[in-house]
Amino acid sequence: MRNDAGYKNIFSGIADELNNIENIGAVAAYIPKLRDVDPNKFGAHLLTIDKQHFCFGDSSEKFSIQSIAKVLSLAMAFELEEDKLWERVGVEPSGISFNSLLQLEAGKGIPRNPLVNAGALVISDILVSRLKDPKRELIEFIKMASGNTEIAYSPAIAESEKLTGFKNAALINLMKSYGNIKNDIDTVLDFYFNLCSIEMNCKELAEAFLFLSADGVNPLNGNRVTSASKAKRINAIMQLCGFYDEAGEFAFKVGLPGKSGVGGGIIAIHPGVYSVAVWSPKLNSKGNSYRGMKILEYLTTRTESSIF
Amino acid sequence: MRNDAGYKNIFSGIADELNNIENIGAVAAYIPKLRDVDPNKFGAHLLTIDKQHFCFGDSSEKFSIQSIAKVLSLAMAFELEEDKLWERVGVEPSGISFNSLLQLEAGKGIPRNPLVNAGALVISDILVSRLKDPKRELIEFIKMASGNTEIAYSPAIAESEKLTGFKNAALINLMKSYGNIKNDIDTVLDFYFNLCSIEMNCKELAEAFLFLSADGVNPLNGNRVTSASKAKRINAIMQLCGFYDEAGEFAFKVGLPGKSGVGGGIIAIHPGVYSVAVWSPKLNSKGNSYRGMKILEYLTTRTESSIF
Amino acid sequence: MRNDAGYKNIFSGIADELNNIENIGAVAAYIPKLRDVDPNKFGAHLLTIDKQHFCFGDSSEKFSIQSIAKVLSLAMAFELEEDKLWERVGVEPSGISFNSLLQLEAGKGIPRNPLVNAGALVISDILVSRLKDPKRELIEFIKMASGNTEIAYSPAIAESEKLTGFKNAALINLMKSYGNIKNDIDTVLDFYFNLCSIEMNCKELAEAFLFLSADGVNPLNGNRVTSASKAKRINAIMQLCGFYDEAGEFAFKVGLPGKSGVGGGIIAIHPGVYSVAVWSPKLNSKGNSYRGMKILEYLTTRTESSIF
Amino acid sequence: MRNDAGYKNIFSGIADELNNIENIGAVAAYIPKLRDVDPNKFGAHLLTIDKQHFCFGDSSEKFSIQSIAKVLSLAMAFELEEDKLWERVGVEPSGISFNSLLQLEAGKGIPRNPLVNAGALVISDILVSRLKDPKRELIEFIKMASGNTEIAYSPAIAESEKLTGFKNAALINLMKSYGNIKNDIDTVLDFYFNLCSIEMNCKELAEAFLFLSADGVNPLNGNRVTSASKAKRINAIMQLCGFYDEAGEFAFKVGLPGKSGVGGGIIAIHPGVYSVAVWSPKLNSKGNSYRGMKILEYLTTRTESSIF
Repeated sequence: MRNDAGYKNIFSGIADELNNIENIGAVAAYIPKLRDVDPNKFGAHLLTIDKQHFCFGDSSEKFSIQSIAKVLSLAMAFELEEDKLWERVGVEPSGISFNSLLQLEAGKGIPRNPLVNAGALVISDILVSRLKDPKRELIEFIKMASGNTEIAYSPAIAESEKLTGFKNAALINLMKSYGNIKNDIDTVLDFYFNLCSIEMNCKELAEAFLFLSADGVNPLNGNRVTSASKAKRINAIMQLCGFYDEAGEFAFKVGLPGKSGVGGGIIAIHPGVYSVAVWSPKLNSKGNSYRGMKILEYLTTRTESSIF
Repeated sequence: MRNDAGYKNIFSGIADELNNIENIGAVAAYIPKLRDVDPNKFGAHLLTIDKQHFCFGDSSEKFSIQSIAKVLSLAMAFELEEDKLWERVGVEPSGISFNSLLQLEAGKGIPRNPLVNAGALVISDILVSRLKDPKRELIEFIKMASGNTEIAYSPAIAESEKLTGFKNAALINLMKSYGNIKNDIDTVLDFYFNLCSIEMNCKELAEAFLFLSADGVNPLNGNRVTSASKAKRINAIMQLCGFYDEAGEFAFKVGLPGKSGVGGGIIAIHPGVYSVAVWSPKLNSKGNSYRGMKILEYLTTRTESSIF
Repeated sequence: MRNDAGYKNIFSGIADELNNIENIGAVAAYIPKLRDVDPNKFGAHLLTIDKQHFCFGDSSEKFSIQSIAKVLSLAMAFELEEDKLWERVGVEPSGISFNSLLQLEAGKGIPRNPLVNAGALVISDILVSRLKDPKRELIEFIKMASGNTEIAYSPAIAESEKLTGFKNAALINLMKSYGNIKNDIDTVLDFYFNLCSIEMNCKELAEAFLFLSADGVNPLNGNRVTSASKAKRINAIMQLCGFYDEAGEFAFKVGLPGKSGVGGGIIAIHPGVYSVAVWSPKLNSKGNSYRGMKILEYLTTRTESSIF
Repeated sequence: MRNDAGYKNIFSGIADELNNIENIGAVAAYIPKLRDVDPNKFGAHLLTIDKQHFCFGDSSEKFSIQSIAKVLSLAMAFELEEDKLWERVGVEPSGISFNSLLQLEAGKGIPRNPLVNAGALVISDILVSRLKDPKRELIEFIKMASGNTEIAYSPAIAESEKLTGFKNAALINLMKSYGNIKNDIDTVLDFYFNLCSIEMNCKELAEAFLFLSADGVNPLNGNRVTSASKAKRINAIMQLCGFYDEAGEFAFKVGLPGKSGVGGGIIAIHPGVYSVAVWSPKLNSKGNSYRGMKILEYLTTRTESSIF
């Protein structure tokens, strides 16, 4: 049931499905821009590799994509570093909460994977080393990948993150003590907090990630973002590490590689078929969008298709 | 390149590929039957859902499938318990070595997933509760699933496992202290050690797992082993949890759900396409077959196909 | 204020002091003999090295001394093994709850100290190896040390412990897997559960431990139980490791080496001065007698003396 | 054998004893001022509460007392905060290496005790809050306590510590994320690195700590530094927590409360009798002075006296 009529039908069922899902959980509250979001917002946008769009609800309203952006910085760093990247960060699931220092200490400063905070900080350090104008070049890369010139950092969010980012400062200092951070800590943190401040709506998010469904090329603009092999590997990392300590649950219930953010967004990839973005601000106890996960489960159950 | 000519070509390249792979690592040595295996054995067998067979090397020689059998006991218990199963065992990757008691203690006696030893012991406890003649009925289930009436336990291996199984005894006693084991400990351990003693060759292994590539039905005999939805979920669990602390590495390099055993066997599933079994006794430092993983990486690289 | 009039005065103040202490916490409930104890019982007995006795309340009523007995088995094993003992067990505080398997696994089967359950199991294993009739010879040692021929195991308690002792079975199996248990597991567990079943009253307890206040010789009967040097070392171990994750609290508030048991008893040693036993069944959240600790704090505050 | 002739005799035996002790281990090398110390230096100074001095070797040569100073900052903060102090830091041994973040995370930002780095950072934060001119007032307090106006920070060492102090920066950021640091991080770190930079010789060290042997009053100048009760409690904390993961070993072998520093110094307290300082730069694997611990063991063995 991968035809367009099918998707259209499924998307028109989301409204009913949402009525059956209580909007429980809590909005991330550690910075004002997240705390003040309307908790009842819900958006979804599915984009097939043959460029069919299906949308629902608040899918054209921008939100803070937060950690979802870590996949894009990983894609850029993987292009630049190739396999040398994996000397400084692992590819294994973390198994515990997303900013724990325990595993980092056990791993002598090598983060478990590039999608936990510590790993994304190492990726940021790599981009700071490699790029002349890191913040500008990253946003250019994302614009190229998505074919969307509107994408931008939110200076207000980046500033708020900086004021409360003591755990990230702990992580980066610990890695620096092990020699796994090469640049000045404040420079890397500034890059990282900007990375996490990017805003997109569901449509933009689905567009920006479509290359991972299409062997590394964005079908919308024909740009090769990464190789087919690297696209597969990024998907594998998302599958294993994209949902903190709930990666298994997401694989079990939804069955697609994906990545969540504390802003309530989730991107999921059906390789060879589509990308889909959902947004619902209330998070479950593991820090993932409660209704977002439910609607993606509805989607793969109704389409009777997952990668498994 | 999923056509039969392709696979034939790829399989005929295995010999050359093996020449490039040093046979490093160590054979599992904690019981005589594993210790005494010829470390240079190598077999591979791929079976497509349209029943095409491709084989190489020692693919018709039986070996101890060990932990690979945990997937089959899970499949049987999942049929019997449905979703109540997940009240007693999780679906998350363990993130540390395969028999650690740490996470079990943190989890108040709930194992992280059904493929670590602790989880397979809980599955064993469930089958002991549910079945009248547990050992016989499990082997009947596997015969039904595989269409192979030759499959049997190895009493010699089961006995050896029992004599050295102190860590498993520690695990089951700890879970019993938390109330997550319902039956007599010795009865459950006897069942578990028999489960791990099953012997198959690569061809039999590929046959026994083909139902997971084919939405729950074994195409060889038409038997429905499990539902399409459960087959997907078992595959998801294998992807996240099938290789101890190397699940990410296997997803990253091979890109298929799979499960390894300390006997040097690995089964991997390409949903909708094939099952493939490999066997090479020497294990890497994480306890997975060194050459087995390499050859599966060769296979998915040459076919340019993985689930990602 | 170490004169006898002082102690007499202080002991007559216990009644008032108890009125100010709420009897909070919970009686250990995992076996009937502990669960059924009257939670309002309270006894105290102080015995100076010049044989002056001071007592209060239910000090002549027997109770299960539980883990307090671990000090006596340690004293016996230390005599037999000398410093070879410390190749199989450490002398460091555990820092976490008293039966955790985490540290045991990190320590490759070497328990942190002889007073945690794992350590006492290793001590038991040593005594089972060394003695011809271990249970009888241990009780003979305790009778010799205390000069009291009435001391005995409680078969009923030992049997109850055995029926619920799954965590101890987990610990001993884990250590066996590391090679740090030499004898049959059931034999060692039987010895250990008997050790923990010993019953004494406060007077008997103070008498049995007086040798640790008097350089290794019991002043009551002149028997040398251990050397002066070993007595000091056993006291040091009690000071660092006698109260699970509350050793620091006990040193800080009471300032004496001591050991508690889940039966609600505590023994404390003032080297060169006295031994003192208290008993109050309700335990605080760390598993130590709530009122017992409070009254010992009262005692060392009123005497203005501690080892520090 | 606590008479002066005894100590004199024992001190004259140190030279012979040192000949029997191999000078093994490694000098702390993370900053130049520690790395460049002559590893063969050895000094010892014992000072009785009746003001008798016994010295040996390089006892009048200044060295970096490092973490030993944490006891002095604790004494000052305890005077200012009284028991409110213990809401922000525990009194339990850490059980693992001295700068681990693991336990800090488990403890929600409350350090295990005031002598691990995290705890000393909280104490520093308290002093920064409480004092108008924290660095000057701390050094005034130490001068008052010791009756020595020569004591000073080493700006060179403080600066070096700052340049390599990433683990301490990780610790303080982590505690700040839990709300257990009230002041600006850089201000507290500056205070802390100065605290650790203090230099003394063995004589000065013994003098500065004599108040802990004498119920809180320095017999040399009659100044009350703290109350008798607080002196006992500080001693208890040193006994349980003064030697990182070797506190049990020090209690077992030496039997006195004490504190070590990575500069190779150790202070030990015999309450009511003496204070003793030793210095030997090479550290054992746990970070404590190798020969320092040996000579203190020799001392308490020869005097046949410890607190136990």
